[in-house]
Amino acid sequence: MIHRPALGLAELERLFDEDALYGDLTTHALGIGGRAARMTLRARGDMCVCGTEDAERLLRHLGLDATRDCDSGRAVRAGTVLMRCEGDAAALFAAWKVVQTLLEWLSGIATDTRAIVDAARGGATDVAVACTRKNLPSTRRLAAYAVIAGGGAMHRLGLAETVLIFPEHRRFLDDGDTLAEAILRCRRVAPERGIVVEVTDEADAVAAIEAGADVLQLEKFTPVAVARVRTVVDGGSGRRPRIAAAGGIHAGNAADYAAAGAEILVTSRPYAAAPRDVAVELRPA
Amino acid sequence: MIHRPALGLAELERLFDEDALYGDLTTHALGIGGRAARMTLRARGDMCVCGTEDAERLLRHLGLDATRDCDSGRAVRAGTVLMRCEGDAAALFAAWKVVQTLLEWLSGIATDTRAIVDAARGGATDVAVACTRKNLPSTRRLAAYAVIAGGGAMHRLGLAETVLIFPEHRRFLDDGDTLAEAILRCRRVAPERGIVVEVTDEADAVAAIEAGADVLQLEKFTPVAVARVRTVVDGGSGRRPRIAAAGGIHAGNAADYAAAGAEILVTSRPYAAAPRDVAVELRPA
Amino acid sequence: MIHRPALGLAELERLFDEDALYGDLTTHALGIGGRAARMTLRARGDMCVCGTEDAERLLRHLGLDATRDCDSGRAVRAGTVLMRCEGDAAALFAAWKVVQTLLEWLSGIATDTRAIVDAARGGATDVAVACTRKNLPSTRRLAAYAVIAGGGAMHRLGLAETVLIFPEHRRFLDDGDTLAEAILRCRRVAPERGIVVEVTDEADAVAAIEAGADVLQLEKFTPVAVARVRTVVDGGSGRRPRIAAAGGIHAGNAADYAAAGAEILVTSRPYAAAPRDVAVELRPA
Amino acid sequence: MIHRPALGLAELERLFDEDALYGDLTTHALGIGGRAARMTLRARGDMCVCGTEDAERLLRHLGLDATRDCDSGRAVRAGTVLMRCEGDAAALFAAWKVVQTLLEWLSGIATDTRAIVDAARGGATDVAVACTRKNLPSTRRLAAYAVIAGGGAMHRLGLAETVLIFPEHRRFLDDGDTLAEAILRCRRVAPERGIVVEVTDEADAVAAIEAGADVLQLEKFTPVAVARVRTVVDGGSGRRPRIAAAGGIHAGNAADYAAAGAEILVTSRPYAAAPRDVAVELRPA
Amino acid sequence: MIHRPALGLAELERLFDEDALYGDLTTHALGIGGRAARMTLRARGDMCVCGTEDAERLLRHLGLDATRDCDSGRAVRAGTVLMRCEGDAAALFAAWKVVQTLLEWLSGIATDTRAIVDAARGGATDVAVACTRKNLPSTRRLAAYAVIAGGGAMHRLGLAETVLIFPEHRRFLDDGDTLAEAILRCRRVAPERGIVVEVTDEADAVAAIEAGADVLQLEKFTPVAVARVRTVVDGGSGRRPRIAAAGGIHAGNAADYAAAGAEILVTSRPYAAAPRDVAVELRPA
Amino acid sequence: MIHRPALGLAELERLFDEDALYGDLTTHALGIGGRAARMTLRARGDMCVCGTEDAERLLRHLGLDATRDCDSGRAVRAGTVLMRCEGDAAALFAAWKVVQTLLEWLSGIATDTRAIVDAARGGATDVAVACTRKNLPSTRRLAAYAVIAGGGAMHRLGLAETVLIFPEHRRFLDDGDTLAEAILRCRRVAPERGIVVEVTDEADAVAAIEAGADVLQLEKFTPVAVARVRTVVDGGSGRRPRIAAAGGIHAGNAADYAAAGAEILVTSRPYAAAPRDVAVELRPA
Repeated sequence: MIHRPALGLAELERLFDEDALYGDLTTHALGIGGRAARMTLRARGDMCVCGTEDAERLLRHLGLDATRDCDSGRAVRAGTVLMRCEGDAAALFAAWKVVQTLLEWLSGIATDTRAIVDAARGGATDVAVACTRKNLPSTRRLAAYAVIAGGGAMHRLGLAETVLIFPEHRRFLDDGDTLAEAILRCRRVAPERGIVVEVTDEADAVAAIEAGADVLQLEKFTPVAVARVRTVVDGGSGRRPRIAAAGGIHAGNAADYAAAGAEILVTSRPYAAAPRDVAVELRPA
Repeated sequence: MIHRPALGLAELERLFDEDALYGDLTTHALGIGGRAARMTLRARGDMCVCGTEDAERLLRHLGLDATRDCDSGRAVRAGTVLMRCEGDAAALFAAWKVVQTLLEWLSGIATDTRAIVDAARGGATDVAVACTRKNLPSTRRLAAYAVIAGGGAMHRLGLAETVLIFPEHRRFLDDGDTLAEAILRCRRVAPERGIVVEVTDEADAVAAIEAGADVLQLEKFTPVAVARVRTVVDGGSGRRPRIAAAGGIHAGNAADYAAAGAEILVTSRPYAAAPRDVAVELRPA
Repeated sequence: MIHRPALGLAELERLFDEDALYGDLTTHALGIGGRAARMTLRARGDMCVCGTEDAERLLRHLGLDATRDCDSGRAVRAGTVLMRCEGDAAALFAAWKVVQTLLEWLSGIATDTRAIVDAARGGATDVAVACTRKNLPSTRRLAAYAVIAGGGAMHRLGLAETVLIFPEHRRFLDDGDTLAEAILRCRRVAPERGIVVEVTDEADAVAAIEAGADVLQLEKFTPVAVARVRTVVDGGSGRRPRIAAAGGIHAGNAADYAAAGAEILVTSRPYAAAPRDVAVELRPA
Repeated sequence: MIHRPALGLAELERLFDEDALYGDLTTHALGIGGRAARMTLRARGDMCVCGTEDAERLLRHLGLDATRDCDSGRAVRAGTVLMRCEGDAAALFAAWKVVQTLLEWLSGIATDTRAIVDAARGGATDVAVACTRKNLPSTRRLAAYAVIAGGGAMHRLGLAETVLIFPEHRRFLDDGDTLAEAILRCRRVAPERGIVVEVTDEADAVAAIEAGADVLQLEKFTPVAVARVRTVVDGGSGRRPRIAAAGGIHAGNAADYAAAGAEILVTSRPYAAAPRDVAVELRPA
Repeated sequence: MIHRPALGLAELERLFDEDALYGDLTTHALGIGGRAARMTLRARGDMCVCGTEDAERLLRHLGLDATRDCDSGRAVRAGTVLMRCEGDAAALFAAWKVVQTLLEWLSGIATDTRAIVDAARGGATDVAVACTRKNLPSTRRLAAYAVIAGGGAMHRLGLAETVLIFPEHRRFLDDGDTLAEAILRCRRVAPERGIVVEVTDEADAVAAIEAGADVLQLEKFTPVAVARVRTVVDGGSGRRPRIAAAGGIHAGNAADYAAAGAEILVTSRPYAAAPRDVAVELRPA
Repeated sequence: MIHRPALGLAELERLFDEDALYGDLTTHALGIGGRAARMTLRARGDMCVCGTEDAERLLRHLGLDATRDCDSGRAVRAGTVLMRCEGDAAALFAAWKVVQTLLEWLSGIATDTRAIVDAARGGATDVAVACTRKNLPSTRRLAAYAVIAGGGAMHRLGLAETVLIFPEHRRFLDDGDTLAEAILRCRRVAPERGIVVEVTDEADAVAAIEAGADVLQLEKFTPVAVARVRTVVDGGSGRRPRIAAAGGIHAGNAADYAAAGAEILVTSRPYAAAPRDVAVELRPA
């Protein structure tokens, strides 16, 4: 994990306020807020856990006595206790769903990322799985945390982080301007970054190799087509670009892509992961 | 739509900055940022559109000349143009994925909500579909907007908005304290809100009817069990509670629940909707 | 109390910074900032205390050793110690007025709310006092906290929380559109919320009863007029709406309204409460 | 007016969101949000207007066509139109109470400030009315705007702005340390600021004069006692301190204090002003 | 020090996130984040330390065990240990440069302020050094903290804090309007503040003395010219204005200005101070 | 320029509020706020302009009629008009120093960056100048904007953007763990990023070449030492790492480093640039 927890305190407060700004009206109306309570959170199915550090920080900030039993990134069996927490019923009822939803959603992303990583490693030991910037709007920080907990990497955390030449960019180049020249220009402006070129067919891939790209991002290539590009790259002399496959990658085909020679699998799939159920037991202490 | 757009300007700036704080390095490195560009966004498949008002506001705030062709909530066919935008390539490349991802994700939620609503209306004309608070953390404002664009309602926007007595709450009542007394106490504290009681079996449902609940929330009841509760309610005298079905509701069973007599279908399903693809064409103007 | 304290840490910092961003220049200029100091806060008159939880959190966040002697919601006599605090003179002088003003203002609202609640209960045991949304701009969170500490309820915390049909809304209905139909339409959109109708004369009240409103909000009715509506409601068959009286309610007439049969008294009065003086003693420790 | 409007856009959005984050549910449920609407705001009684610039900015930011008829600081008669606004019913119903409450509360402070200023000027033409830092927590920016609109001044906008030696500060001075030495020390640290000393009896006032204070703040002196201090000051040679009266100043005694020779009246009174009613007419356009 | 630390927690989080939002990728990629680490920060040269309180608060907030060895404002020799910190390598590598840069930059300002103060005191014991508002944008809070740590004062913390009449203001006065009248007008509006007048030549200085200014701000006067104004002031009767010299003041000429009779030296110089190097040792614990 | 302006509206408001939250008290006290005014900003010396886009956005947001005459990045002669602005004196006096200081500071960084870039290009046409993360705390966004306006690049915008192995990191590797293995591990985790290794002597540089680094960052090497490493690199076979020189680079030695074969010059120098004076003329319109 890069660092823990994912969110600062101000952001955790915002997360809590979204749901529970004025607390749980029901607890208040029933007059039970002052009772001592205990909450236990368990994995309902097998999962790669994520978010316990943030949940723990939030619960403690609310004045509760919280402990995590599992760190983010750990694979657990159904029934495993993830966290325990004690304190006032008022605070526990207010925090219940915030914490549960956070863990369920993050663990969903982490678990699906892990599944793709594990599948891909079946095709080639060293392959990397990198998730795109297409996380749900305003959730990048949490999403990146979950991807990394699941053993993946972030393709890039922002648009100014790497040079990635899309076909859309190339439409804006002047007529005489070659891809090779464009790549050289990028190197001068962004001297320490690899230059990635997205290509959409094999001829284009070959052109990008010749133009000196550091990484070829093969968009919607079949594994067979990836393998053909691999052969071209391996047959080349001098500096060999790395091969990334993107578009439609999932746990079911990740091994094929890895076996075909893609060194990096780029995917948005985990962001649409189903949340993994977390069972919450909340009772008088 | 309750009001448009969903987000304030400060939040839209935060959304943009998450991805494009320093702009698109590639556009900059290629030296094409000052070129005039045009972006067109189209629905790739049939969908219930959502987010065009926010996208338009953001693009205009970036100094671009943007117009939406569709309002949120409109059902469109594949190929329909959703938005058009012109301006500097630097701004367009920076905004591209932010806008695309926003529309894709919101339209996913809206489309799946719409599907459940349409299915449910096949079972009973007046049934309402209400989405839970289990949206992804920190996205409530956007999620609620999409639910409503899809024809759904928000079950509750925050924990202090309604009284919803869970079995977990009841565990904290004193021994002699009856549900009927608890409901009366809630009415005093929250005089204008309906009192909802979640029940997990039919006997409990009957007890809640007798205790005077305004709404019964039947958790994970089959349609057949819902119908039996419906019969009990309809046979009663005086004030009749409304019936909500919750837990596992989706487009495939919504009609059955509605036909069985549930007046409200409570679901979290649309939050896990697959984003609906939006095709982006970005070229020199 | 729904939950404690009312404000998150980021908001408490903003509150402090409004007054003391750069600390107390006088303490600094006198060179006494490093001296050990002790601050004691006492009620100058009888009051319903409010805000000690937030004050305590703020003072501790500033590195001071603070303890509250009274929880929010407690009625105290003149002279009662509310809080005690020790630490550096620099921090204590900086926090002094922030904390004092916070307690004075919140206790003012809580005390006046309590007075109306106590008066109303003299008219009818079960009557509820609900405060409106007309708190001072940008103080809802604190205001709601004080209302609840004083034994009141919040009428609604935001505009999307309940359905409340004002005469202004009805002006926008189509000509043939009846109130009864409008109410049914609202039920479909907001299935679990009571439908409140504001009426301004008795004929209108009767119409709203017949149209199926859940709550009648009688705007500026006299207690006698409230009693007449009560009689109509009680004489009705089937579902009986609840009666709320609004407009000009205060501690002096609350009992009359309650005795006349209003079940809910809606008021903005406590927001204009005079702050209750808190005496601060600040001296070397 | 120092500058207009009082709040930045981000703060105005926060103000709006506090009440209307998800819009007006009633307007939405009734299905009238798309209708064209017109809102007119009028003074219900005589008042010193405040807040129209901020209201106008907010309404325009919501996409409405708003115009103010009166600037902040203008004294108007009952019935005067303050603002007019046209646009979608959805936006108008969402903004209605936010704008109304803002104008009512700010105009209350401005009107009460104006009353004290006018009264004081009856006692002495040149007297200044300065309001304290004891505005309601988190409303300083708005409160200061209203004070100035009413013809008052802010005593100080923050704790680091002036040197004001309270008796509480003096308790922390070392035994041999005289007030005169303390004042000299303050001058070195805060070379361009006047040194204000709060005194609580006449002997103390005389001591502060001799110690070289720039301003004497007479705390809870009667007008007669103020006049006696005035005599002492006027009889002195060299640099004469200015006299400020503080504690219990209101419109009813301001003239007496001014006539007695106080050059500055320090008061918190306007912060507890009753909001001034603003009549809102909202109907189809 | 006015109060410590300079920044609230929310601001410290923002400072950290600017650099280390997603942690240190290198530490993560190397797999060394979980190792125990120790960081020691030492002054590389002689300096006036500043920022250790903020650094300590930030490091502790990150879960590290941090202790400061020096308070802000202390003059230290090269090699002195400023802070020590232990904890996870992941957190330490993430915080390293944030903390180092903060200390280096703040200590630069403090050290250069101290040098001017020390030099000026060589010319006149009681002279004060006040830094302007021309700190780097968005860094006032930190800059002011460093100025004060270095023994300086802030000329003014904001534009509404004092009355300072620039020649630019005077261009807007009506033709018949004299400076004396303008000053009187200012006194009525801002009764407790000194009135400062910036003058650009000696004739203007004499005019400002006669008009009743409290402080003369001599813009770009030579020490000799300052001395002449001093003579005029000292020869006057009644209230004598204070003399501030501004424009081009630095450690090399501060003594001359002070000796010439300037009581306040106004300077922006320390904001351009070179950061003072802090050596960081970071190794396994 | 990557994108323009550098700051969002919410940040520009924060920048303005830091200095002018309550406006310019002097303008208000003099009663000249409503007068029409005109402000012209000119370069006092030759400079590379930066910040006019942000200044223009801010001034317009304040309701002023502002136009920029120069874009960021343009080199101008002394006396060139940078911006012009008209409107109320109240708004102009409030914005004056905020805008002036912003332009002066940003133009300082841009101008010094440009000087290093120009000098370096004298040594080798293709060399790139990259500025470090050691900008002043909380000013990265502005600092990066100025660096790019000056023709430089940002070395990295955040700690998670590239892999840069410091000697400090290597101390945490296990005993048997070689640099080559560590680099391979980094490639797996961050598949698309270049791996930079900081080295402090020539032997270490050779080791890093052999271990497969993508970039050698030579810390405090002389140009002669850089040239020796260049020779080793050029004599190697296969993939050749790029060479970056860091530590003590400035305009005076940049050409030597470039001529010696450094392809990237890494420097923090421009952050300590002296602000470039901007002359402001502010007078009645």
